[in-house]
This record gives sequence, structure tokens and C-alpha cells, in this order.
Amino acid sequence: MIVLGSGPGGQRAAISAAKLGKKVAIVERMRELGGVCVATGTIPSKTMREAAIHLSGIQQRAFYGAAYRNKENVTADDLRHRTQMVMMREWEVIRNQLTRNNVDIVVGSGRFKDPHTITVEYHGDIQELQGDFIVVAVGTRPYMPAGVEHDGEVIMNADSIIELKRLPRTMTCIGGGVIGLEYASIFAALGVQVTVIDQAIELLSFVDTEIVDALIYQLRQLNVVFRLGEKVEQVAIDRSGDTPRAVMTLASGKIVVTDVALYSAGRQANADTIDAASAGLEVDQRGRINANSRYRTNVDHIFAVGDVVGFPALASTSMEQGRLAALEAFGMRDDRQVPDIYPYGIYTIPEISTVGATEALLTQESIPYEIGVARYREIARGQILGDDTGVVKLIVDQRTRRLLGVHAIGTGATELIHIGQAVIAHNGTIDYLIHAVFNYPTLAECYKTAALDAHNRLAAINAVRPATPAPRPA
Amino acid sequence: MIVLGSGPGGQRAAISAAKLGKKVAIVERMRELGGVCVATGTIPSKTMREAAIHLSGIQQRAFYGAAYRNKENVTADDLRHRTQMVMMREWEVIRNQLTRNNVDIVVGSGRFKDPHTITVEYHGDIQELQGDFIVVAVGTRPYMPAGVEHDGEVIMNADSIIELKRLPRTMTCIGGGVIGLEYASIFAALGVQVTVIDQAIELLSFVDTEIVDALIYQLRQLNVVFRLGEKVEQVAIDRSGDTPRAVMTLASGKIVVTDVALYSAGRQANADTIDAASAGLEVDQRGRINANSRYRTNVDHIFAVGDVVGFPALASTSMEQGRLAALEAFGMRDDRQVPDIYPYGIYTIPEISTVGATEALLTQESIPYEIGVARYREIARGQILGDDTGVVKLIVDQRTRRLLGVHAIGTGATELIHIGQAVIAHNGTIDYLIHAVFNYPTLAECYKTAALDAHNRLAAINAVRPATPAPRPA
Repeated sequence: MIVLGSGPGGQRAAISAAKLGKKVAIVERMRELGGVCVATGTIPSKTMREAAIHLSGIQQRAFYGAAYRNKENVTADDLRHRTQMVMMREWEVIRNQLTRNNVDIVVGSGRFKDPHTITVEYHGDIQELQGDFIVVAVGTRPYMPAGVEHDGEVIMNADSIIELKRLPRTMTCIGGGVIGLEYASIFAALGVQVTVIDQAIELLSFVDTEIVDALIYQLRQLNVVFRLGEKVEQVAIDRSGDTPRAVMTLASGKIVVTDVALYSAGRQANADTIDAASAGLEVDQRGRINANSRYRTNVDHIFAVGDVVGFPALASTSMEQGRLAALEAFGMRDDRQVPDIYPYGIYTIPEISTVGATEALLTQESIPYEIGVARYREIARGQILGDDTGVVKLIVDQRTRRLLGVHAIGTGATELIHIGQAVIAHNGTIDYLIHAVFNYPTLAECYKTAALDAHNRLAAINAVRPATPAPRPA
Repeated sequence: MIVLGSGPGGQRAAISAAKLGKKVAIVERMRELGGVCVATGTIPSKTMREAAIHLSGIQQRAFYGAAYRNKENVTADDLRHRTQMVMMREWEVIRNQLTRNNVDIVVGSGRFKDPHTITVEYHGDIQELQGDFIVVAVGTRPYMPAGVEHDGEVIMNADSIIELKRLPRTMTCIGGGVIGLEYASIFAALGVQVTVIDQAIELLSFVDTEIVDALIYQLRQLNVVFRLGEKVEQVAIDRSGDTPRAVMTLASGKIVVTDVALYSAGRQANADTIDAASAGLEVDQRGRINANSRYRTNVDHIFAVGDVVGFPALASTSMEQGRLAALEAFGMRDDRQVPDIYPYGIYTIPEISTVGATEALLTQESIPYEIGVARYREIARGQILGDDTGVVKLIVDQRTRRLLGVHAIGTGATELIHIGQAVIAHNGTIDYLIHAVFNYPTLAECYKTAALDAHNRLAAINAVRPATPAPRPA
């Protein structure tokens, strides 16, 4: 098996195939393994976030006041120091995992020569690899429209921001998607005045509205300005003053001027870089490859996983796709029924996580639900941590008391969500959460408090209409 | 219903009864509500721990070196400031919850006059309360043997340490149970030289040995000295020098001298303070009350919950006991089958949590198991946090692949454990964890890595002996 790309999807495909005793090569065009996930994406942004939380002291302000800073004059070097350390360790971990499993690591740009042959070019040297199966896991790159002057200093994208040289005083995020909001919150926490511009009126439309509203409220507390329903017509660098600045012209006529601008409006998949046509592989206009539910492409022995296949484009789902593609290729696909739910984690400050159904979806499908809410400020652990804004919201089936969804914002939300996920996957009801004993003091107690809240709300409904007893789990 | 004591068990009993529309009074002898949990126990110790983690910068040392301190010269005031704030907020939360549910709060020392009458004395004023049901939730106090001079400055117990005036240079913890080890790790993190003395050779014998070994290893890295299998014969204060010091004489002849000593060897239940005999209520020598599985005592309408009934004496289990006692009293006990598992959280630095079966127990019961281990250092989130010592260990049934236990040490262990708990409670197998998608990067990913590790170990066994297929959840 040949795997093109060593991001989360490629790694998992390679290791899973190797564990089945197959001969595997992984091709990576970048200097280090791990793809954009490690080099410029998830790992550095999450590490920068952790550094920002620590250095800003934002989580300590409940105790020491809103003006508290853990370190005065945080610099870009402070952020880079930590980011570099974690990236280097992660590169090492990935290299170890691959070599321990006898995966051949081939450095260079891989392209299809024919359906079973990959040519790898590295500084002019070319080698050919032959594979029975090929997994395309080449990921995405930031989308930059023609005409935007991306100099990497004043106008940046998600790749170049990692190399930020000085902490700006003011910043514009063009695009209020996951990446834009993550960086907006990181820099806002560090005291940068951030403006977020997005064409949409409602951000993160796949997330529970109440949770998104809470995030926006929290970001405004950090002085973030939102310009929503606004189209950016032009992004330019003004060099007339002592220091160059970013100038955004909006369709509504407004001009926004900040020290730097982060362009984070969409990503372009990389399948346009691998001579896919030589393998008969179909690639769409945005560089993506279509794959079926078993991650097979239109060419039977070629698989595609990860961001290059599009939604949901998460490191977590990409890893699972990679693993499943390798098992499928070698006829080892495990057909045990797997619940088709996965969590979504957004590493803003505060962080968001969500799993299962949203209120909007259930209303649309006419499935009657009730909610149960717990707030961190009512929970001892929330007070100990100084997080009085976190919320866990459960969505519960009115008739069966089954847990259908969990939506959370606040410290540790991306970890906590997996408790609800396990209950949902096992067809559990809120009665499990009501009766379960949780460590005290933990944020996990929110599940019990929220389940009791849902129970009390359901009692009012049941007083009017007797509840259908909950079916026993299948 | 009259509830004696407003700790976690008493609160839950009172609120649950009130939610059923019953008239409830709660009697508290201390100035504030919440019992020792808020005043001197769980809440202040966990808050002090959080402050120690922040001020010491211990979690940042992976990035900035072993000598890194977030604040030089941490003082006892630094710890107290935060502890006081959290206690005050928690008192407010509890008062609000009780008053919002129309629970009468009666301040003073409650004692039985007869089986249905409680006299409450407050600064000489006495009032009488009549109750159809009475819940005894009067908790425990630190046990101090006769002859130990507890001055609260040189020789302290778990109550007086909250009022610590100066951070000592050296400290002895007499008793290496949960409380002793929690404080040992807090002060060690702050740079205090700590000695832990215990009669046992193996500490925390109810916890997985590998996890306890890891804790002891970590504490030794913080310069903690363990004197195990040693009996303390005498504890005295030496006032001959400029400052008084604690002098411990061990049965083995060793003398240990430190600035302060924390006496944390056992607790005494408070049922000896309520004239239990006037109600015909039996109290044992250690001040405890026997209660059956429905928390009824030998007197039918009197219930006992929380630390006063003994093991496990956790805030979490006490809350659940209080809730169930109130439901039982008013005939509303919910008899849905509840899995009889609860997690144990130990708030050392690093923290420990455990749920379900241990290796020792299963070996004793001849239930064949396999383990699956994940280390934080292999997980991206572990690297981002700078925690390379955390471990999650799964215990899996060799024949059914069911998850039987989870044992964890490291950042967030007390939260993470609830994921495994939900799987165990729903009779889930490691296949759920293998197939589940976890947010990336999270520590929760350890479950997937550990489950894959168990899967690979089981594969070796299955190659020899075909596995019984996992029974479907009932």
C-alpha cells in the first residue's frame, strides 16, 4: 500500500495496514511528517492557544481581577517557543510510530504515473513506487483568492500565522469559521483588538445556537468586534505610514484598518497536485476527491481519506477514515454496527464541543425533545477553576428519555463531551446520568445536574401526558 | 423531614424532599452551610491545590524547565485568598439552593430529644423541631489521639491546615491516606520538603498498584520522602529554638524534625454528638451509624447518609445517598436497576481516578482479563499540556471484551474516568472505544489508544484460543 500524505488520515491508514503485516510506504512532500495538522494546523494552533491561556492568565481573572496578566508584554516569541517544542515532539512521536511499525517513509512530492504507480520527486531526484492499493490523504491548503497580497506579515493565512514575528495591536479575521474564531479568541485573550468579518449573519451554523451565542458574548467581553453579513471586497496593504497596515474595504462601504489581517475564508483541497487524471481519479473544482462510505474512490483500489474528501475534515474523523480504509483494502473491514455519531470540538477560548442532535434538527424532524441545562457556576469545580460561564446542555427525547445530544461551552468541553457520546452510543437515558455517581468536584457533575433539570422539566410534561416508558437498550 | 447537617449528603436529602413538596428543615451547627466539605475539607483543599498548580507553575515546567516558578515566594496568603473566595461563593450557592427550594435553615447544634424531636441550641437559645423523618448527615471530624498537642500552627490537622499562616520549609504528613497524600503533593509542588509517614507498606491499597506506584514515583520527583511501615510513637513540639518545630519519634528509633506536621491519620464520625441514644439510635465506637442499603438506620424513620455511615465517605456518594434516602422516606424510591459502580477521585498532583474492577480483584476472583494502556506522552494533547507522565489503563474481560475497569493518573483523570464509567455501566466493550471518534487533540483519545492496545494483546490470545463472541448488551 502506498499512502500519499502523512497527516492524521495517512498515518492511521499506514499503521493499520502495517499492523496487518502489509508492506507500506508513506509519501510526504514536506520536510517533516504529520501534514498541516502538525506543521501549521491543529497542533500549533492548539499549542498557541494553551500558551495564550497560560501567559494571559485569563482563567485566573475570576480570582485576581479582569486586569490580571500572568506575564506582562507577551511576545510572539513566547508563543513560538512553546509551539516549536510541541511540534518537534509530535514529529518525533509520528516518526517513531511509523518506523516501529516498519512503514517506509518516502520524502518528496508524490504524483500518479498510472493507477498503480506513484513517482516521488525530491529536489530533482525521482523514484517510482508500485502499490496494490493507494490511499490519497493529501489534505488541504488555505484558500487565497486571486488579488490578495499574502505577504505573511501584514496579510496572513492559517499557514503563515504560525510564523508571526510580532504580536499585533489590532487584527482582522476575514472569515468567522472555526479557524478564524479560534485565532480571534487566542489573540483577543492576549489583549489584541480583534475584528471578525464574515458574510454570514449566523456563525458556526452547525452548532447549537445557544452555545454559539454564548461564545460570541464571551468574545465580545474580550473586546472582539463582529462585522457579520459583511462582504470583504478588497484586502490591501497600506505602506504609506511608518509601519504597513492591512486595509479591508467592505461592500457596505466601511473601511477596516488593522495591524494585521488573517485570511481564513475556506480551504482548497490538494488533489489538484497529484496528477490524479493519470490514475483516472476524479477531482472536483475545489481539489477534492469523492469517496464512498468505505472511502473507495471511483477507482476501485484507490482510497481517499481526510480533509481531501471534504466534510467533516477533522483530524479525529480523518484518523478513523484512514484506519477503516486500510481495513477495507485488505478485506478486514469490521462490520460491527458502529454508531454514526462523532463529536465536534472547537478550540476557541472558551472551547466548544457538541455531539448528537441539535434542537434545530429535531424540531425540523418533528421529534419532541426537552432540554436540561447545567451551568459551571452552580458546580463546585466551576467555582474552583474560576469558570462561571461554562454551560452543558443535554437534549433528551421527550418520550423515551434517551439522550440525543450534548452541547457544551467552557473549560474542558472538548473532553467532557465524550461522556455524553458514550451514553448516546449505548442508547442510554438521562436516568443513567441521574443515578450515576460523579467524582466531586468535577465538571462532569454538570451531566447529573443537567439530567435532573431535564427530569424536572419532563415531570411537568408527564403530568399532562403520561410518558411512554423508555424502551430497553437493544 | 429534619436533616441534621448541611454537607453534601444533608443538602441533597433536604432538596430532594423539598422537590417532592415536603416541609423540610436543615440543621447546621457551624456558622456557614456546607459542612466540613466547604469549610475545611474538599472545597478548600481542592482550591488550594488549584492555586498551588497555578502559582507553582508545575504544569508549565515541561516547557520552561524544572526550575520554573510562576510566582516566586508563594505565601500562605496567596493560597488563602483564593480558598476564601471559593468558599464564600460555595456558601452562597448552597444557601440559594436551599432557600429557593423552601428548605428552612436552622442554625445551631441539633440533638435528639426523642425519636421525632430535635432540639437545636444556638448560643443558649433552644428550639424544638418535630419531624416525621429524620436524616442524620453529621459527618466526621479529624481524629487526634490523646496526647498529641494540636496547636494549629506547628501541629495541624485537616481542619486547621486551611488556616495555615506561613508556608513551611519542611513538613511531615502523619498518615499517607487520601488526605495526607493530597496535602503532601500540594505542598511539595510549592517547593516544601515533605515527609510522609505511614504504618502501611502499600499506600492507597484500594487503588490499582501501577497507578499508586506512578504517584509515588511522581511525588519523589518533587522531593517527597516516604517512611512506610513506620509507626509514629510520639508527636511533640520543640520550642527550644527560635521557632517551634514538630518532632516525630518513630517506633524504629528514627526522629523526624520538620517546621510543621499534618496529622491526617483517620477521622472520627460525629454521631457521638447528637444524643443518638434518646432516639434509640445505635452508634459505634468510632461515632458511626449503621445504615442499610436504603440508608435506614435501626430506627425505621431515621436515615443516615454521608461520612457518618463510613465507607466510601466521598462527597459524591454522600450526595447520592442523601437523594436516595429522601426518596425512600417518602416512598418515591426509584427501583430502576442502577449499576453499582462509582468512581474514586484522589486530588493529588498528579490526580488519580479509578472506576470498576482492579487487576488484583479479578485475579482473586479468577476472572481472566487483559489490559490496555495509553500514555499521555503518546497523545498530542498530553504534549500540548506538557504532561508526559499521565497514564490511562483499561481492564478488559478476555472472553467478552467488556470494559471492566479504568485506572488513570494525570491531568484531568478525575474527569476522564466518567467516559469509561458510562461504557462499563452500559455493558460496553472495547470495540465501542476502538470505533468511537474522539475530539483531537484531547486526553480522551487515550481511551481509543488503550482500547487498540488491549485489542492487539487480545489478538495474541485469540490466536491460541478462539474468543467467545461478546454478548450483546442486555
